[in-house]
Amino acid sequence: MTNDPLVIFTPSGKRGRFAVGTPILTAARQLGVDLDSVCGGRGICSKCQITPSYGEFPKHGVTVHEDALSVWNAVEERYDQIRGLKEGRRLGCQAKVQGDVVIDVPPESQVHRQVVRKAAAARDIVMDPATKLYYVEVAEPDMHEPTGDFERLCRALKDQWQVEGVTASLAVMRKLQPALRKGEWKVTVALNKGHNDTNFRVLDIFPGFDEGRIYGLAIDLGSTTIAAHLCDLRNGLVVASSGIMNPQIRFGEDLMSRVSYSMMNPGGDQEMTRAVRSAINTLTIEIAKEAEIDAKRIMETVFVCNPVMHHLLLGIDPVELGQAPFALATSHSVSLDAMELELDAINASARVYVLPCIAGHVGADAAAVALSEEPGKSEDLVLIVDVGTNAEILLGNTTRVLACSSPTGPAFEGAQISSGQRAAPGAIERIEIDPITKEPRFRVIGCELWSDEDGFAEQTKATGVTGICGSGIIEAVAEMRAAGLVDNKGLIGSAEQTGTERAIAEGRTNSYLIYDGTDAGGPRITVTQGDIRAIQLAKSALYAGARLLMDEMGVDVVDRVTLAGAFGAHISPKHAMILGMIPDVPLDKVTSAGNAAGTGARIALCSNAARAAIEETVTKITKIETAIEPKFQEHFVNANAIPHATDPFPNLSGEVTLPQLNFNDGGGDRGGRRRRR
Amino acid sequence: MTNDPLVIFTPSGKRGRFAVGTPILTAARQLGVDLDSVCGGRGICSKCQITPSYGEFPKHGVTVHEDALSVWNAVEERYDQIRGLKEGRRLGCQAKVQGDVVIDVPPESQVHRQVVRKAAAARDIVMDPATKLYYVEVAEPDMHEPTGDFERLCRALKDQWQVEGVTASLAVMRKLQPALRKGEWKVTVALNKGHNDTNFRVLDIFPGFDEGRIYGLAIDLGSTTIAAHLCDLRNGLVVASSGIMNPQIRFGEDLMSRVSYSMMNPGGDQEMTRAVRSAINTLTIEIAKEAEIDAKRIMETVFVCNPVMHHLLLGIDPVELGQAPFALATSHSVSLDAMELELDAINASARVYVLPCIAGHVGADAAAVALSEEPGKSEDLVLIVDVGTNAEILLGNTTRVLACSSPTGPAFEGAQISSGQRAAPGAIERIEIDPITKEPRFRVIGCELWSDEDGFAEQTKATGVTGICGSGIIEAVAEMRAAGLVDNKGLIGSAEQTGTERAIAEGRTNSYLIYDGTDAGGPRITVTQGDIRAIQLAKSALYAGARLLMDEMGVDVVDRVTLAGAFGAHISPKHAMILGMIPDVPLDKVTSAGNAAGTGARIALCSNAARAAIEETVTKITKIETAIEPKFQEHFVNANAIPHATDPFPNLSGEVTLPQLNFNDGGGDRGGRRRRR
Repeated sequence: MTNDPLVIFTPSGKRGRFAVGTPILTAARQLGVDLDSVCGGRGICSKCQITPSYGEFPKHGVTVHEDALSVWNAVEERYDQIRGLKEGRRLGCQAKVQGDVVIDVPPESQVHRQVVRKAAAARDIVMDPATKLYYVEVAEPDMHEPTGDFERLCRALKDQWQVEGVTASLAVMRKLQPALRKGEWKVTVALNKGHNDTNFRVLDIFPGFDEGRIYGLAIDLGSTTIAAHLCDLRNGLVVASSGIMNPQIRFGEDLMSRVSYSMMNPGGDQEMTRAVRSAINTLTIEIAKEAEIDAKRIMETVFVCNPVMHHLLLGIDPVELGQAPFALATSHSVSLDAMELELDAINASARVYVLPCIAGHVGADAAAVALSEEPGKSEDLVLIVDVGTNAEILLGNTTRVLACSSPTGPAFEGAQISSGQRAAPGAIERIEIDPITKEPRFRVIGCELWSDEDGFAEQTKATGVTGICGSGIIEAVAEMRAAGLVDNKGLIGSAEQTGTERAIAEGRTNSYLIYDGTDAGGPRITVTQGDIRAIQLAKSALYAGARLLMDEMGVDVVDRVTLAGAFGAHISPKHAMILGMIPDVPLDKVTSAGNAAGTGARIALCSNAARAAIEETVTKITKIETAIEPKFQEHFVNANAIPHATDPFPNLSGEVTLPQLNFNDGGGDRGGRRRRR
Repeated sequence: MTNDPLVIFTPSGKRGRFAVGTPILTAARQLGVDLDSVCGGRGICSKCQITPSYGEFPKHGVTVHEDALSVWNAVEERYDQIRGLKEGRRLGCQAKVQGDVVIDVPPESQVHRQVVRKAAAARDIVMDPATKLYYVEVAEPDMHEPTGDFERLCRALKDQWQVEGVTASLAVMRKLQPALRKGEWKVTVALNKGHNDTNFRVLDIFPGFDEGRIYGLAIDLGSTTIAAHLCDLRNGLVVASSGIMNPQIRFGEDLMSRVSYSMMNPGGDQEMTRAVRSAINTLTIEIAKEAEIDAKRIMETVFVCNPVMHHLLLGIDPVELGQAPFALATSHSVSLDAMELELDAINASARVYVLPCIAGHVGADAAAVALSEEPGKSEDLVLIVDVGTNAEILLGNTTRVLACSSPTGPAFEGAQISSGQRAAPGAIERIEIDPITKEPRFRVIGCELWSDEDGFAEQTKATGVTGICGSGIIEAVAEMRAAGLVDNKGLIGSAEQTGTERAIAEGRTNSYLIYDGTDAGGPRITVTQGDIRAIQLAKSALYAGARLLMDEMGVDVVDRVTLAGAFGAHISPKHAMILGMIPDVPLDKVTSAGNAAGTGARIALCSNAARAAIEETVTKITKIETAIEPKFQEHFVNANAIPHATDPFPNLSGEVTLPQLNFNDGGGDRGGRRRRR
């Protein structure tokens, strides 16, 4: 055997000697080299492309001659003419070993290739999907040795792919016989095997060699919004993202009011279950349309959500989650058929994976954040805040990870805010208020210009200025506080107290006018005293939760803060800190993780290994129940004020005077300093 | 340890030494003695009853003293007062070892007890059900160590029953939390683990210790009728039996016309699928009502059926079964959730098991007959004929088993017969025709008297005489032949030819009048020429199938014949042989197995081991496809005549002259002899 040619694969470095005439794909498989193939080496799928290298390789101790591989053949020529092969590429199933050779497997030919995520800070996803395509050639039926078509398909999968223990739903059984005959006994099957499964499931069957893609949905099922990423299951890339309001809002804006609805109305939980499942189907149809794909090509859906949404999605009455001891019906991950959830927009045999819950108030969404942000692998102490109708809060480092949930309500998402709206074109997302003139300027989604810049009116003509989104209201309140329009208790001053006509009396309180479009038939956008109160409650809940975890960890400061959540990416860290949403840390230590829960869902969608990992991780997280901790109430009350700004912004240039008003005490500027750009 | 008392169990003979104070139940479990328990030794379920024996046991080498067990305790006293314990019985979980003792485990305390079947010839069923009840005490939720209620249930099952790998459907998840709380953290769960499963499924959960029973349905899904046995899953006893017409008859009486309906009408297969599933639900509700049980207590359903019914039940278009090579979509057994078949009358999480098919024309019903009758274990060569709209035919002994199916049509079931009807009170089931006077006498279902006996009119007043059932028409044709009313080609003679006014001209053919009830507003029951033709076609198909198997086996005679089928028990072997339905064998070698397919279904319902066994058996059966064997047509044509009776009845006393008429050839008695009682 030592006379056989040496085949060396890069980048893996795996090597072995193979008889002359061995296809490179065969050599790769025998060595365990990660070289893709859907058609099993028949020269159909072109997934096994490799790049041979020629010349001297002192590092590897070989010289590769020009004739190290069999000559370019007709299969390769045909593929090259029809589809085009990159310069220097060969098909691994066609090119055969003739002499010592060094073979590079390009990233796109690796099954377990890495997908680079957009968010720079986050780790990449290594593809390890539960569902993959397999092309097989099935024996025709023989009357004298009668076996079912399905049994012959299983035999072919075993012989051609070493896949054993294959099952199929009735939906697939129905398609099996026509597909085999249409494909002339050649079919492509989508096989699924979850990380806890012992068997493979046939999810779908396509006649012949199917070149189509298969997809998965990663869904972040929030109390207020449902956000979905449609991902290509071969490479993990997001091909479309979309969102929809959670229609359960009509049963109650926050989670506890939905639990109450269920308690008060027999069958109310089922009503809410139907509503959310129907919305998911609508969202699915929309996102498939946007991506211009057949929704039946969606083979898997991964859900992350808080415990109440988790139960309502699964059709379990959440009533136990509304009272101590907040017992979940099930805390482990849930794997099931999509049909059980009536998700009929996607493939009839599609599978669903729901991440595990951490505790009765800390759900699969928090688990997803932990999967995405990996606090347990952080050397410094990181506070991760996923802001939504409920805030999921994680605090930890390599020694220990703590988690809790805090009922912030929907204010941060623009709900329960007088001029609040979803983040959509026309919504105010950035605000600055001049501390001297008290005049605002703002930016709206869909326009790069500030409202006081030339061309703003022109560029926003189509969308108009329609309201304030979640990040906008946070900036508005923080800026009002910084500009002396609001005191530390959160009261908006009168026109007299603040010296601006934009402060408008409304009954016994005041509002601050940001934009008046009524002349042009547009809205009048103000921040009311009620808005300030809603934001105060929300931020106090958030801060109190974080403090509780810090108490448990025995620390007064954290090293860094990660803001996550559907709109986490849009929150200005500076304004969040002015508001007192998060503990003080150097501003450059506050980063945004985007929709970390959604990212966690996407990771779980792309990787069986990640599913196993997060199931292990959640068992090790220390759960803190905010609802029964007396100190939570204490922190909550203490966090109600909008704090003095004690120089939290060392990186900002310029200084401004931060007025410390207290309108109830008669008002007046008590001084205080802060730098301001 | 040698000083520890010796505990000997009978009838198993298992023995071991156990420390003083060891409960008998514990000793039994450690020795692997088959001693039942649902409550896990808590003195609740009383399933572990045992009978200690006292005195000298030279055979076992022990003397058992009166104090060999701990004294009768309060738990036993309470149980005895409420329910009553048989004399000498103790509860195995309460009685503890004090000295050497001999313990008898009565049959009703054995899990794997045998159920004696009614049919004397058939083997007994050893209980090994896939679904059993388990009582568990579950830990209450702890806010500081949050785990789901389901995870704590699994933990309890593991700790208290060594049951691991438990899953639950969403339907069970929905019931879990209320059941745990209602039962104060004590519940009884129905766990299912099929012979091919790796996990246990929770099918249902009941608060507290549930004393109710759980049931299974064994369904023989025929082309014409659907027959069900409702069985107690603890002991295998049939608590009710019922049947219903297969509503698919409106789409075609025989299988091929249903396949044609599917071919000609898009969606026709789905129409038929809906019809049969709906009928099964109706039947289920009826049988549960009859047995006075809650249908939701039905945890499993086992189906046996021919391949076309198999596919239509599963919702698979049977079109491929209508043309060579008659490929089944799947031939293996099928295990699935009852909900997938829309069987919503039974438990929402109930399981379905469909026996494997043998070939494209030899279905799960034939497999069930093989399971029940075990031709592969027969020393002599046995021909098993399961008569229905399709006849399933098995021929074999310990060396080899052959199988085929033959399209007999529905005539044997009383369909397509002018006065035909289902076997029900009022139907003629027995007929004798006097060969001299040509006068008939008959018996109807529901009355022990013959029609010429005193009191017949009185006793049949309620039901009347309504028609002829399957066994009746076979006897009628055979008797008509024996009485010289029909020639060997099957033609009915005229009044002139036969010498009886009961031969009535109808157009160009004749009918034979059996009963005229028109004076009293009742029916006029005749056997028409069309009826004879239908029976001839049916019996020829049956005989040709049997001959084909005999050819393949290389034999001209068989040692014995077993008649099976829904009405197999009612066929007179003598008449079947006169008719030429079955090959000639000594009359005492023809036995009835009753509904062997239904029995096979019941065995599979009661035993995981039997499911595994039949799956193995079917792979070893040689399949013969009648539809493509030229010799089948040949045998069919040859079998069309109603044969000369050449002394096939050596056991019958008396002799009669059997006329050999041929009315086409001018008629006349050509002689021939037969004995007749």
